[in-house]
Amino acid sequence: MRIALAAALLTLPAPVLAQEARPEPATPASVVAAATPSEWKAIDRADLLVMDLAPDPAGNERRVVIQLIPAPFSQGWVGNIRKLAQGHWWDGTSVYRVVDNWVSQWGDVEETKPMPAGVTDQPDDTYTAPAFAAPELTLSDSYAKGAGFDGGWPVGFAESAIWPLHCYGAVGVARSVGSGGTGSELYAVIGHAPRQLDRNIAVVGRVIEGIEHLSTLPRGPSATNGVYDDAAQRTPILSARLANDMADGAPLRFEYLDSASDSFKRYVEVRANRKDPFYLHPAGGIDVCNVQPPVRRMPAG
Amino acid sequence: MRIALAAALLTLPAPVLAQEARPEPATPASVVAAATPSEWKAIDRADLLVMDLAPDPAGNERRVVIQLIPAPFSQGWVGNIRKLAQGHWWDGTSVYRVVDNWVSQWGDVEETKPMPAGVTDQPDDTYTAPAFAAPELTLSDSYAKGAGFDGGWPVGFAESAIWPLHCYGAVGVARSVGSGGTGSELYAVIGHAPRQLDRNIAVVGRVIEGIEHLSTLPRGPSATNGVYDDAAQRTPILSARLANDMADGAPLRFEYLDSASDSFKRYVEVRANRKDPFYLHPAGGIDVCNVQPPVRRMPAG
Repeated sequence: MRIALAAALLTLPAPVLAQEARPEPATPASVVAAATPSEWKAIDRADLLVMDLAPDPAGNERRVVIQLIPAPFSQGWVGNIRKLAQGHWWDGTSVYRVVDNWVSQWGDVEETKPMPAGVTDQPDDTYTAPAFAAPELTLSDSYAKGAGFDGGWPVGFAESAIWPLHCYGAVGVARSVGSGGTGSELYAVIGHAPRQLDRNIAVVGRVIEGIEHLSTLPRGPSATNGVYDDAAQRTPILSARLANDMADGAPLRFEYLDSASDSFKRYVEVRANRKDPFYLHPAGGIDVCNVQPPVRRMPAG
Repeated sequence: MRIALAAALLTLPAPVLAQEARPEPATPASVVAAATPSEWKAIDRADLLVMDLAPDPAGNERRVVIQLIPAPFSQGWVGNIRKLAQGHWWDGTSVYRVVDNWVSQWGDVEETKPMPAGVTDQPDDTYTAPAFAAPELTLSDSYAKGAGFDGGWPVGFAESAIWPLHCYGAVGVARSVGSGGTGSELYAVIGHAPRQLDRNIAVVGRVIEGIEHLSTLPRGPSATNGVYDDAAQRTPILSARLANDMADGAPLRFEYLDSASDSFKRYVEVRANRKDPFYLHPAGGIDVCNVQPPVRRMPAG
C-alpha cells in the first residue's frame, strides 16, 4: 500500500491481539468526524467572496471561494473588498501573476481601472490588532512570541498585539512601498507559508474551496517576478461576488470547527502526534500553518 | 508598486539622508550574490536524477532535476534509485497522483513492473542516521529538538540522531505499512512542509529545477486520495537518468551554497530579519523549511 492509500487505513478493522480488541488510534479525520454539531460554526454568506474564473481548457468551471477575515483584523481592506465586489470591479480582470511556492495574484494588471466610490488606499500601519485576550489555542512558533488559533483563524501574537498569518491559502493585499493598498490587487499563498509577510501585508481572508484553480496555473517568468509577459497567459476573472449578493448563492453553506472547542484541541494534538499504524515516529509538535483548521461544505439547505 | 515588483527595489539608489549616504539594506538576494566562489560547492553529476516528462499540451518540454541525498541518509533507497535509473525502469511509467498542498507522486501505478536486479524493499527503521555532530547551522523548531542545515540540506536532530526534512520540493519514497519501500514509487512535496512525515518515510532527494512541472499538474480526485481515476490524466515519464549516464548530461552543472559558510549564515539571518524598505516588521525568526537553501545552475563548461 502506498502513501496514497494511507487514509484507507481508517476503515480497517481493529487488530485483535491476545483476545482483546484494541481501539483504533485517533486520526485527524476521525477526530473531525466525531466533533459535535455545536462545535461547528456557520460562516456568514456575507463573508464569502465567490470568484469565478474562465473555464479551463477542457471546459471545466473554476470557482474559488474565499472567506473574508472577521473583525478586528484588516477591516479597512475587507470593507473595500465588499465595495469592489458590489461594484463588479473584478469582472473582466484576471489572474496575472503566478510564482511557484509563493503566490497567485489577481486584479487589474494595468492598475488603471477606476476604483468604486469609497475605495481608498489603506494605511500600512494597521496589520495588527490590540491583543484582546490570549488566543484560544497556542503553539510554539519560530516567528512570533507565540502562535495559535482564534475564531478558527491562525494568528500570531505578542504582549500587545495579535495578527493573522500567511499560511497556505491565505489571501492578502498586494501593495506598494509606503501604502497598504486598496484590496483590489489580491494574492493567495500557494506554497510553504511565507511568514515573513506577517505584519507587513494585510491578510484579508483564506481560500476555503477551489485553491487548486489558483495553485495549478502556469508559473510566470522569473524575469518579471511571475507576471505573465503575454496577456493571453492571464486567466480571466468572469465575476467576483459576495455570496449573499448572488441570486444562486443560497447553496454556499460552509462551517468551520470552533478553535475553542474540545474537538479542535484534540485535532491539533492528534495532528502533532500521529499514532495510526503508518506513523512510526509521532512528531511531537506541529507548526501553526501545518494544522489546517477544518472547514467543511454543508449540503444546500 | 505591487509585491510582484518588490525585488526591483534592490536596484533603487540608496536614499541620502542628512548629507550622508546610507548603505542598501542586505537582502537574501544580495547576500547570495556576494557569496565567494569557494562558498559554493559543486553537485556531483552522479547525484542528479533527470526526469523528462512528456511535453505539456502546448508542446513545451518538461524536465525535472532531482539532487539525490548524500550519505549518511537514505542510502539503501538511493542505491535502488541508481539501479532503477540505470535499468531505465521509470521510462513509460507516469505521474499518477497529485494532491493539492501535499505531493505529486510517480512510478508504476499498477505496481506490477518487475524490479531490476538488486532492488529490494528497504527496512522501515532506517530513516535517521546517528548524530555525527551538531548541524552546521541550527534553528528553533516546532517538531524536533532542533533543526538546521548540514551539507546544504535541511535536517532535524535529537541527542542521538539526525534526519532529513520534508520541506517544499523534498523527494520521498512512497511505502506500505510495514515496509520502507524500494524507491520506485517517489513523490515530491508541493505544499506546506508536511513535517509529520519526517522519520516516517525516506527522504531521498530534492527537486532543484523544474518543480513547476510537478506542482502545476491537475489534482486527482479526493475519493482516491489524488490517484487519477482515468489513465489519460496521468503524465507520462519519457525517461529518468542519472546525469552522468546521459550522452548530453555534461551541461547539467549545479552548485549549492555551503551551509557551513559565512554567507549561508548571513543569508539565514537576513531572511529572518528583512530590513529592505518593503518590510515594516522584520520577523525575527524563520522556520527551517522557509529558508530555501540556495542552489544555482552554472553555465555549461
